[in-house]
Amino acid sequence: MSAQSGPRVGSSFLYDVWYVAGWGHELQPGCRTSRTILGQPLVLFRTERGDVSALEDRCCHRAMPLSEGTVVGESIRCPYHGLEFGTNGACVHIPAQDKIPSTARVRHFPLVEKDALLWIWMGDANKADIATIPDHPYHRDPAWAWRSAHYDVQGNWQLLVDNLMDLSHLPYIHPLTIGGDPELHFKTPTISTRLPNGVRVERKMPSSVPPPTYVAAAGFKGLVDRWQEIEFQPVFIRIHTGACDEGTGAYDGDRSHGLSMLGFHGITPETETTTHYFWSMATNIIRDDIPDLVFEQTARTFKEDQAVLEMQQRRIALEPGRQLVDIASDVGGRQTRQFIQRLFRAEQEGEAVVA
Amino acid sequence: MSAQSGPRVGSSFLYDVWYVAGWGHELQPGCRTSRTILGQPLVLFRTERGDVSALEDRCCHRAMPLSEGTVVGESIRCPYHGLEFGTNGACVHIPAQDKIPSTARVRHFPLVEKDALLWIWMGDANKADIATIPDHPYHRDPAWAWRSAHYDVQGNWQLLVDNLMDLSHLPYIHPLTIGGDPELHFKTPTISTRLPNGVRVERKMPSSVPPPTYVAAAGFKGLVDRWQEIEFQPVFIRIHTGACDEGTGAYDGDRSHGLSMLGFHGITPETETTTHYFWSMATNIIRDDIPDLVFEQTARTFKEDQAVLEMQQRRIALEPGRQLVDIASDVGGRQTRQFIQRLFRAEQEGEAVVA
Amino acid sequence: MSAQSGPRVGSSFLYDVWYVAGWGHELQPGCRTSRTILGQPLVLFRTERGDVSALEDRCCHRAMPLSEGTVVGESIRCPYHGLEFGTNGACVHIPAQDKIPSTARVRHFPLVEKDALLWIWMGDANKADIATIPDHPYHRDPAWAWRSAHYDVQGNWQLLVDNLMDLSHLPYIHPLTIGGDPELHFKTPTISTRLPNGVRVERKMPSSVPPPTYVAAAGFKGLVDRWQEIEFQPVFIRIHTGACDEGTGAYDGDRSHGLSMLGFHGITPETETTTHYFWSMATNIIRDDIPDLVFEQTARTFKEDQAVLEMQQRRIALEPGRQLVDIASDVGGRQTRQFIQRLFRAEQEGEAVVA
Ligand code: FES
Ligand code: FES
Ligand code: FES
Repeated sequence: MSAQSGPRVGSSFLYDVWYVAGWGHELQPGCRTSRTILGQPLVLFRTERGDVSALEDRCCHRAMPLSEGTVVGESIRCPYHGLEFGTNGACVHIPAQDKIPSTARVRHFPLVEKDALLWIWMGDANKADIATIPDHPYHRDPAWAWRSAHYDVQGNWQLLVDNLMDLSHLPYIHPLTIGGDPELHFKTPTISTRLPNGVRVERKMPSSVPPPTYVAAAGFKGLVDRWQEIEFQPVFIRIHTGACDEGTGAYDGDRSHGLSMLGFHGITPETETTTHYFWSMATNIIRDDIPDLVFEQTARTFKEDQAVLEMQQRRIALEPGRQLVDIASDVGGRQTRQFIQRLFRAEQEGEAVVA
Repeated sequence: MSAQSGPRVGSSFLYDVWYVAGWGHELQPGCRTSRTILGQPLVLFRTERGDVSALEDRCCHRAMPLSEGTVVGESIRCPYHGLEFGTNGACVHIPAQDKIPSTARVRHFPLVEKDALLWIWMGDANKADIATIPDHPYHRDPAWAWRSAHYDVQGNWQLLVDNLMDLSHLPYIHPLTIGGDPELHFKTPTISTRLPNGVRVERKMPSSVPPPTYVAAAGFKGLVDRWQEIEFQPVFIRIHTGACDEGTGAYDGDRSHGLSMLGFHGITPETETTTHYFWSMATNIIRDDIPDLVFEQTARTFKEDQAVLEMQQRRIALEPGRQLVDIASDVGGRQTRQFIQRLFRAEQEGEAVVA
Repeated sequence: MSAQSGPRVGSSFLYDVWYVAGWGHELQPGCRTSRTILGQPLVLFRTERGDVSALEDRCCHRAMPLSEGTVVGESIRCPYHGLEFGTNGACVHIPAQDKIPSTARVRHFPLVEKDALLWIWMGDANKADIATIPDHPYHRDPAWAWRSAHYDVQGNWQLLVDNLMDLSHLPYIHPLTIGGDPELHFKTPTISTRLPNGVRVERKMPSSVPPPTYVAAAGFKGLVDRWQEIEFQPVFIRIHTGACDEGTGAYDGDRSHGLSMLGFHGITPETETTTHYFWSMATNIIRDDIPDLVFEQTARTFKEDQAVLEMQQRRIALEPGRQLVDIASDVGGRQTRQFIQRLFRAEQEGEAVVA
């Protein structure tokens, strides 16, 4: 493993993918919010009838942010001189003027609500295929309880991908919650696999001592069979961690009697140096306050990660192109970076990605 | 009206004009202040005898800001090693040194006090003609009462010109004070006229319901004949608004029996993205607390405008050269921008402006 | 003296010199701190055995600041994934990995503790000669009492050199403490001399009235023979000021019966526009609270200087290359700047400096 094999932190965005733009519950009917994605300021709003829309947050008349305006019926009204724009960005009303010029419109971005998430397409609108929006059934399955959050991370989005694809930092950054014994973490083999549209990293820890959060949530009395399954797709990550009593079939697909924690991590670049981190944590133990307990410990853990990413970013910003050095535990992160690099190149060459 | 007809926000200053640099009362004898105009840091000071001066705010010795120093007689003394400079920028004293080198001077800008305003010339000093400094007789006429203010606007100066030359934003931005009925505003014809050295916009609202501020100030009992007269000269605006009882001669020049509000708006670029806004409001009803009432409502109204300009600026800064789309009510603003463009070109070509 | 003779504020660093990186007492065993020098972020740490080290503050693995980590024995451990680096910057431990690649190292800078100061070499390590580290015996001589400080100055380092090499600012900036009578200061001849590796400025004030601090510290009853001796070496300054009773041999080297104040001024660029100012004040009158009294008056005085430098910097930043105008009292400062310029040129040409 040489310095030459290490990554450089990219300075580009992927465009032709569905990104998480927010949580559906953030936009009540008649409400709007301002949000920047891939450097583009947007107004997100929901009409009174309930449709959601993402428009460029800049009135075509005098550049006023539309997000300072008001939703009026099925349109958003600019606060300065009262122009109104429909969900597709076309101007539908100019005060005291009958004819609306065809140039009076603002840019519109496809926005779709699905499984409690708002998905946006920032790239070539002709390539936006609603059928390719990811599923996240845990958000609609009553057998799971979940909670959600939105963190604003002052760091490049790829740092967050690295962080989640390589859990070898757990004993160092999260000693108090989910970290556990460094020896255990480092001795566990990590298997990283390319998927048709992503990367999967897997670790098994059979017959191990359950960490404190697990005992608190599931009441384990003895050793457990643990698993960590991480799946990257552009650009979000699902992490399934959990444990069953030792030898009760966890590695044969029979896990419903144990503890499952299903994390969803929507990773959406705000700018080159800042990232929207939309995450949720679902658990299969939904009695009492277990989901809250799991969520609160997770929230604290992810705040620790956020602080790390922001410190990394400050150093990387000083010398953005400088080579880094890989170590053995980077196998999953490296495969993910290579996959992302192929997507970048494919977009730049205007080709479909051959997975 | 096509997108091509809309303005771009300029990134230039006019130099060969008199700008408002401040209010005379800001500079008491022996006092100095720091102020940046057209990107140039200045020290403004008044000598003990009463003369005003504007010098570059940077000592020629070691670049110390002279505005941190003290006025000593007819000079300003640098706080670091005690060099003193006269009102014309020449060094008049170096401690422990008899000969003063001719290079020991700082740049000087013509500054003239007139009608309570300080007028400065930032351009070619050879073209500075005191006879061309604008008059504002309302500031010296005891028949009028006036109050003044200085707002620091975080926006390009042309945004403020746009705002004042197009009052169609009143019902949207100022619904609570001077806005009134949107229908009335939009149905009123706007007449825009080129003047020898500016642009004039005029609107008449005969037989209309007076807005709350008018009733409070003038006690109107019935309908009124209203007017709005806006005059741009480089680079300030006078706005005369008011009303008389319906049919009592307001449109024939007989207005003294009604309510007149005479706004002066000195618009002085601080930098490309910030503007000094020196304004005063004079009224012909000077009894009781009417002038204060009018001023306070105006001050609140202009703060609403300031917030709008600052939001526009943030969007425009992201894509400064991007085309905007005009609408019908932009007639006065557009004519003003065209006039300003001609002044720009004339300055760049070094010619006198042919109006 | 013409404008052409004045300095420009440089935008370069000297590299091949020993700089003060801090005070030894700042780093207790097992402690680390983050510090930027010549634009380079560093972690300074002291091992448990007591060695000091300066490393690049950026882990070679994923750019995490090592200064957020912990000292473990004789190494510093990165907080993210646990890599450990020895005092020479080589990685000595990677969790769960036997072979350490030779590329796993961070840049190391020579750091030496001497006379309570930490001296660092930021330039070509082959030229770092420990024998050339300056002595400062006052820090180890029990006949002197001293106190130290670290100011962060928001200004270019050469502004601080100028300030200390030309004390003609004393009556203007420090009227309340060490300033004294402007006439006295300006009439005193200043003798500036080139030394083999620096510049020396000297002023004698025989039979003068002692300033308040002097009387308070030494109890002078009549006139005194004062001296100010300033010596610049790259890049620190020693200032010896003091006084003896008139005619008691002060100018013949017999000063132990008077008051001596020996200032050490380590001037270390943090960035082009900010400077670490490590200073100490030693005095030969060590009874009672005299050293504290002298230190506190000095600390207040240097804070006044700091404010001046920061105001200068803001003006200079606007037009960095612009010519300044010298005056007569700049003789010492000018000679120092010329000396520094020669060092710059010598470094750029890769030659040894011929003094
Ligand atoms: S800026 Fe939006 S309507 Fe004028
Ligand atoms: S900087 Fe103004 S007198 Fe020296
Ligand atoms: S960033 Fe330092 S060990 Fe990974």
